[in-house]
This record gives sequence, C-alpha cells and structure tokens, in this order.
Amino acid sequence: MNYKEKALKIHKDNKGKIEVNSKTPLNTKEDLALLYSPGVAEPCKEIHENELNIYEYTSKGNMVAVITDGTAVLGLGNIGPKAALPVMEGKAILFKTFAGVDAFPICLDTTDTEEIIRTCKLLSPSFGGINLEDISAPRCIEIETRLKTELDIPVFHDDQHGTAIVTLAAIINSLKIVNKEKEQIKICICGTGAAGSSIIKMLYEYGIKDIVAVDEYGILNKDKMEDYDFLKKDLLNYVNKKNIRGTLKDAIKDTDIFIGVSVGGIVSKDMIKSMNTDPIVLAMANPTPEIMPELAIEAGAKIVGTGRSDYPNQVNNVLAFPGIFRGALDAKAKKITKEMMLAASMAIANYIPQDKLSYDNIIPDAMDKGVARSVAASVKSAVK
Amino acid sequence: MNYKEKALKIHKDNKGKIEVNSKTPLNTKEDLALLYSPGVAEPCKEIHENELNIYEYTSKGNMVAVITDGTAVLGLGNIGPKAALPVMEGKAILFKTFAGVDAFPICLDTTDTEEIIRTCKLLSPSFGGINLEDISAPRCIEIETRLKTELDIPVFHDDQHGTAIVTLAAIINSLKIVNKEKEQIKICICGTGAAGSSIIKMLYEYGIKDIVAVDEYGILNKDKMEDYDFLKKDLLNYVNKKNIRGTLKDAIKDTDIFIGVSVGGIVSKDMIKSMNTDPIVLAMANPTPEIMPELAIEAGAKIVGTGRSDYPNQVNNVLAFPGIFRGALDAKAKKITKEMMLAASMAIANYIPQDKLSYDNIIPDAMDKGVARSVAASVKSAVK
Repeated sequence: MNYKEKALKIHKDNKGKIEVNSKTPLNTKEDLALLYSPGVAEPCKEIHENELNIYEYTSKGNMVAVITDGTAVLGLGNIGPKAALPVMEGKAILFKTFAGVDAFPICLDTTDTEEIIRTCKLLSPSFGGINLEDISAPRCIEIETRLKTELDIPVFHDDQHGTAIVTLAAIINSLKIVNKEKEQIKICICGTGAAGSSIIKMLYEYGIKDIVAVDEYGILNKDKMEDYDFLKKDLLNYVNKKNIRGTLKDAIKDTDIFIGVSVGGIVSKDMIKSMNTDPIVLAMANPTPEIMPELAIEAGAKIVGTGRSDYPNQVNNVLAFPGIFRGALDAKAKKITKEMMLAASMAIANYIPQDKLSYDNIIPDAMDKGVARSVAASVKSAVK
Repeated sequence: MNYKEKALKIHKDNKGKIEVNSKTPLNTKEDLALLYSPGVAEPCKEIHENELNIYEYTSKGNMVAVITDGTAVLGLGNIGPKAALPVMEGKAILFKTFAGVDAFPICLDTTDTEEIIRTCKLLSPSFGGINLEDISAPRCIEIETRLKTELDIPVFHDDQHGTAIVTLAAIINSLKIVNKEKEQIKICICGTGAAGSSIIKMLYEYGIKDIVAVDEYGILNKDKMEDYDFLKKDLLNYVNKKNIRGTLKDAIKDTDIFIGVSVGGIVSKDMIKSMNTDPIVLAMANPTPEIMPELAIEAGAKIVGTGRSDYPNQVNNVLAFPGIFRGALDAKAKKITKEMMLAASMAIANYIPQDKLSYDNIIPDAMDKGVARSVAASVKSAVK
C-alpha cells in the first residue's frame, strides 16, 4: 500500500477520527433520572442562578471549538468547509492526545468575515475556547482580533501564532548554538500571511528588531504603502526601519537568519552564501521547503529547520497549541496574551537541556508528549 | 445525600457529561503523519473532488448536532443557552448510549428565529443530522419547517415529534387492550404547543380524525381564528370539525382518550368520570401530571400513562429519538418524513408482544436498549 492509500485507509476504517462519549455510565433507571430528566434540572438551575457554575457542571471548561471556513486548508487552499473537515478532526484528536483537551470540529459554510465572527459568538456558550484554523489571510487576522475583544473565552488562531511560537523557540535555541545575541542579529522573513505576520510580531516582542520582510512583490517598504491592506500596513511598524527596497535576493544578503513561510524552492544556494557567518535557515514551506536542507547545508547553513517530519528540526505546531489551551483552560484565562505566547516559546526551547542542544536538535520531537505539559505549566503561570 | 445533591454531584464529579475522543490511536510519528499533516490532505482532496466522500472519510455521517437557544428548557422555561447546556449534554449521552450516535451540544446565544435558522445552515457541513431541542413554540415549528426545506440532512425537533411518536405508540397499544378501533374513537388533547401540535398531526395521519384540542383559553375553534398564530390556525385543519365551543370540562366529556401536554393538576376526577367507557388517560405534564394516576384510576380510568419514571407507562422520548436518528443516518436519509415517524411509533408499540400487553404495560421500559435497534430498523425501512 502506498502512502496515499494508507492515509485514505486510516481515515476510512473508522469513518473519520472523532467520537463523542459519555464520561459517566448510564445503565440504570436512576442514572437516567439523575443525568437526564428530572435530575438534570438541578445543574440547569445552578447555572441559571450564577452562570460561572457552567464550569462546574458541564464540559464547557475543557471544550475547544476548532473553527474553519475552509478557505486556506494546508497547502490546498480554498477547498471549502466540507473538504476541510478531516483536518479539523485531526486537530481535535491532537488536542486530546497531547493535552487532554476535548475539541470539536466546526466547519462553517460561509466565508463572510462578519458572519464568521457573529457565528463564533453565537456558539460560544458551549465552548471554553476557540481555535481558529485554516482561514485565509488577512481575514483571519480581523476575525481573531475582533473575537479576542468581543468574547470572554480564549481565542487563538493556530496558523498565525502556533507556527510563530515554535519558530521563536527554534530561533532561541539556534542563537545559543551559534553564540549570537538577539539584539545584534538581522532576520529576513519571506511570507507575510497569517504565519509570517505573527512571526514578525513575536520576534519583535522578543527583542529582535532588525527584520526585513519579503512578499511576492519584493521587500515590504513604506513607498508601497498605498498598495497594502491593513495587515501589511501594520507590519511596516515592525520591519525594514531603514526602508530598503529590492527583491528576496537583496533582503537575504548579510542576514543571520532566514525564515521562510512562503513557497517551495525560491531560495538558491547563492542566497544562503550571501548571508552572515553561521547562517540559520528555517525553510518551512510545505511540502517543499524554500530550499532543501541538503542544499542549504552545502551552501554553508549551520542550522536548518523545516516543516517536514523526515528532516531534523521540524517546526510543528503540535508542540504549541495543545499546551497553550491546556494552560489557558486550567488558568481560566479570558484571553491568550503575548506574554502567554512568549512563555510557550520559552518552554518549548527550554525543554531541550543545554547539553543536548545541537545543530540538528533545536526543537523537541513532535511526538514527545511531555512538551505540552511543560508548555501548559509555563502558559498557566504567565496568566495574570 | 438527597436527590438534588445526588444530581449535582453526578454532574460535578467529571465536570459535565461528554468528552471527544479519537477513534484511532495516535502514538507514532507515522500515525501523526497519516492522521494529520501531510497524510490528511488525501481525504481532503477526495472530498473536494466529490463532496459525498465526506461520509466515507469523516465522522459527519454519525454526528448529530443537539441545538437549542435555551428558551423552553424542561419545565424551567427561558433560562438561556448556558443554563441549557446540561440538558443538551444529557441528550448527547442518550444518543450514544442507546443508539451509538455521536451527538454534540450546541447552545446558541440568540433567540432570533432567522439567526437560528441561518446558524444551523452554517454549521451543517460538520453534521449528519440536527436535533432541535427546547426551543419555544411557535418559533420551533418555523425553525424546523424551514430547515427541513433548506437543508439536505435530517432535521428533527424532539420536543414536537419525540413525544408525539411515543404517545401514538401508547395509544396504539391502549386501543388493543380496550378493544376499540381508531376510526371510532374521540380524543381530547390539552396543550397545543410543540408537543401538542405534533401529537394532533400524527394522530390525524394515523387515522384518528375526531380530535378536540384545548388551550389555556378553552376549546380551539374557528370563531377565534383572528386571535391565533400560524400554528394554531394550522391546527384547525385537524381538530374540532364540529366547531364546538367551551372549556376543558366540555371538551373532555364523552371522549375515549385524554392527552395532557399542558400543566399539572387541571383535570378533576369528575372530568374523568364524564369520559366514555374504559377511559385512557395520558397525563404527561412534568413533574406533576394533569391528574395523578391514583386519582384517575379511582375515577374509572382503565389505562393511565405519565411522563414520570415512578409510575407505569412512562411516555419517554428516549424511546424514539435515538432509534430515529440511527435509522435515518444508516439509510442516509435527507429528511425525517411522516412515514418514518409512523414507522417509529409502530416499532415502539410492537416491541411489546401481544401476550405481554396489559393496562400497566403499554410502553416499553425507557432503559430497554433493544427498543432503539427495533425503531432504527423500522425507520430505515420506511426511507424511500
């Protein structure tokens, strides 16, 4: 059986990946009377009296909605809400497996920004948190920003911040290996969508201020301001303080770190050679990285990370989101803040002991279930 | 521990009643790669190519949304979506326990009819069916009617049809005991809300045409047409063909069956005495029936059913909805039709063998898990 057949079979064998189970056995007439009518009226009345009791008597406090409109699914693009369901079910089982968080896939049959925001708010009584997923940029930014303001449960857009948190962890550990200080390095990032924009802001927040960003039209700079949407306009507050112009080739020259969240194969060996000493390359386009690890190393890269599981240093969101929600739910946090996200990055980076750090071990293994526990504890203690 | 304390404890012990689990173990890097990125792209592509493949590769085909706005919860009334969550979780575990159907509670933070309809449609990609629950009348009727037309998955409002299906089953068996024919009997029904209106239509469909209905203002009749909402106007097509007027006392006189889906204690012994020989009394107001069984029997009632588990002949929706959805999902039905509902009533009635039928055994035990299997088979074979 080839890989495709295997993937289809594992999805077909049980008709999907999730099920909803009872936490309490229901075998006798008394069980029925206590768990349903008439006994269920008692917790209803308690919640009606004080709505915070919903966290005591229902599953809300451990339940996350994984919400998409299917407009930016994996590398497949706008395939619609139905075709997106396998990814959302996958996310749900990762939440449960890595952090004991119950999660349920909600695939919305609309791409209207206002309608998505409104629907998330209407659904919120059943959920303790919302994980937005695979919604195209820049709409995803507006949806997340608005929901963060308008809801009192944690809202998190994994495609933005999940990748950013793990990327920052990778950079923290890489800098230890090449012995450079965050204040002195220069970064080139290619890709300014959901992931790229969050990476830029997190790096800036962390203290890396010399960042040049590149989109499909070249280096982001103030002269192009008129052509930019709100997202790119905002990014100019964080990048390219010298207002340089040019292409990716110009942007990458003399930088210490290249971050790719764009398309496969666009970085050449010559570009890597034009970087500063001990270049760090995080080429995360999927499934084909911006430059293949072998080529990057031939060209002198000291550390290479990708999004792939078949190379060392896989930047995988699963290191972040389960622990983030576990920590936020445990702390009954109303928001996921910058501080909580930085705490997650630090926890992931510090999960690898100093003496185990090496050029091909800057990020914990995606299957290591201890990471989520460590992230959760760190995130929880960062809640104000 | 008293009953209230027990009910609260069983809800608090596990913080609610439902959890979301993975149907497939996720232990190795290969599991992760097949169940999530990159393998998950394969079922996504198959569904994108042909959306019916969603039933092969996802949990949709076995997943029902239990949707409420919290406006008519149990006997508690409009307690809002948060306080309604324990009931919806209860419904979800009944679906799983009795029929292996996965069900998920959705409590909507709106009472606007159009917005509820729209939201159900937006949510539909993730679900194989929708069970509407505890939405106040007459809005629930409009919501269900519209969704039945506008969606291609089964939609069922349990408060209407669940009660009606079990009530009809009880009547079918009662008539066998008292040896009367459906064409020759007269019925008085008190209560014309969600349950009452569906009972009236199902009885009519079944072949019982002589029905008088009573609301809080007396007998439904054509002279009051101007005061009625669309629901009561419609009911006049089914009831009171002789256009009589009066109160409950006038309505119940000389009838063979009294059906109560109204409020406790409104039926007197004298009213029962005014009924035809061998009166059948289904007094289903909760928790206090329209007349207590002891009193009804003293007054000459031959058969008495209630909504309570501490008396014989409990009319309990759990006999109907799990099997109905099991059958509809197994048949990949696009709607739940009158024929499917009648088939469910027949299956429930016939579940008790002729030689086991008696005045205190007209309805199967609510905990008998064989009922749902029988209902499912019958419903499935009624799908065109």
